[in-house]
Amino acid sequence: MQKLSTVQKRLRKFAEERDWEKFHSPKNIAMALSVEASELLECFQWLTEKESHELSQEQIAAVTDEIADVQLYLLLLADVLNVDVCTAIDQKIAKNEERYPADKVRGSARKYTDYK
Amino acid sequence: MQKLSTVQKRLRKFAEERDWEKFHSPKNIAMALSVEASELLECFQWLTEKESHELSQEQIAAVTDEIADVQLYLLLLADVLNVDVCTAIDQKIAKNEERYPADKVRGSARKYTDYK
Amino acid sequence: MQKLSTVQKRLRKFAEERDWEKFHSPKNIAMALSVEASELLECFQWLTEKESHELSQEQIAAVTDEIADVQLYLLLLADVLNVDVCTAIDQKIAKNEERYPADKVRGSARKYTDYK
Amino acid sequence: MQKLSTVQKRLRKFAEERDWEKFHSPKNIAMALSVEASELLECFQWLTEKESHELSQEQIAAVTDEIADVQLYLLLLADVLNVDVCTAIDQKIAKNEERYPADKVRGSARKYTDYK
Repeated sequence: MQKLSTVQKRLRKFAEERDWEKFHSPKNIAMALSVEASELLECFQWLTEKESHELSQEQIAAVTDEIADVQLYLLLLADVLNVDVCTAIDQKIAKNEERYPADKVRGSARKYTDYK
Repeated sequence: MQKLSTVQKRLRKFAEERDWEKFHSPKNIAMALSVEASELLECFQWLTEKESHELSQEQIAAVTDEIADVQLYLLLLADVLNVDVCTAIDQKIAKNEERYPADKVRGSARKYTDYK
Repeated sequence: MQKLSTVQKRLRKFAEERDWEKFHSPKNIAMALSVEASELLECFQWLTEKESHELSQEQIAAVTDEIADVQLYLLLLADVLNVDVCTAIDQKIAKNEERYPADKVRGSARKYTDYK
Repeated sequence: MQKLSTVQKRLRKFAEERDWEKFHSPKNIAMALSVEASELLECFQWLTEKESHELSQEQIAAVTDEIADVQLYLLLLADVLNVDVCTAIDQKIAKNEERYPADKVRGSARKYTDYK
């Protein structure tokens, strides 16, 4: 697997070669990311939860395409802001493990929602 | 750097230990991802593009937190659907390079928007 | 019922009195609208479809609050762009009636999704 | 101007005639609303704030179309949940007027963002 930073270098080069950095303010990239996340959501829009587990090949291809778009804008945003994604997710997982202790959450009557 | 698949294993274990898999239909995860992408967007909501380049330490911390949330839901979704994120982004970058040839796009009067 | 244009006048006055018009570019309002629509979505995030029909008083209050936010930003955006919302929805309903003829859609094997 | 409740009746009839009520759980409608709000946002995605004030006829037409979509899903959601949109926005405006007193907000060094 290539490193995330390698992908970010490719994205930077891609933008430079097209003179597109001027569009890439953090604000604009966050907008684009949110729009792509909605396009991903749209793939599941009228499906039941059950159906969303049983996608056709064609649906998987569409979803995969949108997942890639979200991932690329996320890496671009992190790159522009100089945020390290790997450190960020490590910290977040640790935070979540502390916030939602398995022994208290499991079997609890309180729903997942209450913990969000 | 740890592999994405290692992160995905941690996320799976995290959900299993809390008996939360039942909430994790692809449809629900895509919703959660889109909600997190909006929380990320909210960080930039009333900033100018210029200001979005000059975040305070506190703002960067908030943004980093939201970037992690988006990244984790994206990995969770890919895991549940058995989609390989690395392959997906490789294909997407290749597709974009073909779709927006640098020599035609650069210096063109047509705006970035037209190419999206 | 008060007219939508009366609400829009109140919103305009509200912004003027606070010197907030400078934040109200159509781009910014569209962002704020999308963020509010996500906060509305968040209310339903981990509910099943069935549960989403049976909200508690507290949940209804939260949803009502978010519905108002979305409605107000939508009216603000329409006002700033000089778009008439009533005409817009009339045209849209007529368009949808033509696009999805009841006799062809009803009982059809093709799913709703295909018609979107 | 026709009343909002009249529009809601038309929407209800439209769904009934097509046997589409089964898709219209509050959860699903909130998703559709959020997707439409993102399509509206997409219209402004790569524009500067200034450009977003100076849309072409074609851009206005696209924006108007998306505004209608958001408005219709919002009315549909309110109808399904039996929420009165007019009361909701009246309450919200009153709440905002109390929360952001003009004399304290105007000319204040604290930015709009802090008040959100």
